[in-house]
Amino acid sequence: MQVYPGDPQPEFDPHATIKDDKVNVTRFTLGSHTGTHVDAPWHFLQEGNSIDMEPLDKFIGETAIIDASGKNIITAEEFSGYDIRSNDIVLIYTDTGDRRTNFAYLDISAAEWIVENGVKSVGIDTASVEKYGRKDAPVHKMLLASNIGIIENLANLEQFAGSRMFFVCLPLPLKGIDGSPARAVLFDIVK
Amino acid sequence: MQVYPGDPQPEFDPHATIKDDKVNVTRFTLGSHTGTHVDAPWHFLQEGNSIDMEPLDKFIGETAIIDASGKNIITAEEFSGYDIRSNDIVLIYTDTGDRRTNFAYLDISAAEWIVENGVKSVGIDTASVEKYGRKDAPVHKMLLASNIGIIENLANLEQFAGSRMFFVCLPLPLKGIDGSPARAVLFDIVK
Repeated sequence: MQVYPGDPQPEFDPHATIKDDKVNVTRFTLGSHTGTHVDAPWHFLQEGNSIDMEPLDKFIGETAIIDASGKNIITAEEFSGYDIRSNDIVLIYTDTGDRRTNFAYLDISAAEWIVENGVKSVGIDTASVEKYGRKDAPVHKMLLASNIGIIENLANLEQFAGSRMFFVCLPLPLKGIDGSPARAVLFDIVK
Repeated sequence: MQVYPGDPQPEFDPHATIKDDKVNVTRFTLGSHTGTHVDAPWHFLQEGNSIDMEPLDKFIGETAIIDASGKNIITAEEFSGYDIRSNDIVLIYTDTGDRRTNFAYLDISAAEWIVENGVKSVGIDTASVEKYGRKDAPVHKMLLASNIGIIENLANLEQFAGSRMFFVCLPLPLKGIDGSPARAVLFDIVK
């Protein structure tokens, strides 16, 4: 697991151990945007929802999984040729999730396409949908202001690229917080 | 959210803020068994799996939701009269989840019934399946040694008590750790 530069370093400390206490319990510290995670609107928008206020159905539903491997900038054109429907979650496989900084990212045309086509959430296998280091965050702000969910640092998308599946991603309901680590799974769609 | 006596106190600290940094990011600390969470076998068994080693299908599947409200000790008899099938997840509504210590708990007969009937996981709306303060943890050890999942501190079970549904509970894959906070959802089963 990589940590976005400047974010808190994860820490894991034994709080109780079987040897001394008959039970293992761990005290751990994470950043709210570390590992696979969901961005709450309040991450970038002062008036936006915190993660506990977000309805879970934004992160649960049918998904189209896009293969954007080999691209450094993901534009609206990347979505053509895929069966993407209103209310879908779009997941983007970039194959750049191992890069700490110069990973692939969405440009504003891709964000506009997502808004205009009624996509309800977008997920990506990198640390951010945004170009690394871009502090004005136009892609985040457009998506979050349009009530579109953002899931980052997804893993294992490659084998599902090109298919439609059912996605379930469950962030923790951390009260008043800007995002949360989350686990995500894909199910086959059985008609 | 209550914290099991002796467990770490949750802490949430702003790491970056929109005002100063153009973005909200939080550094948070939790115990591995705080809030809704999954116990890994390694919580009580020295040779048991850590949470990242646990297959997710233990925590995903059809569930029978039991109404054990009004009981302080949940015995095997509590399961009679319910349609509980092999490979089910059994969720137990006790209505004692607001109690910090003297909550309802499973006795060993209930644990034996779960093992003998091929239940794959058991979830409860209290801080523990075990009697409060019982350090030898016979119920945990019997269940975990039998490869049965344990989910504690579930919320909002009341309205689903008595029904069969589809349960998805997703712990974080914390490497080498004894358990993890998790979010859980119930879906209707559509035949």
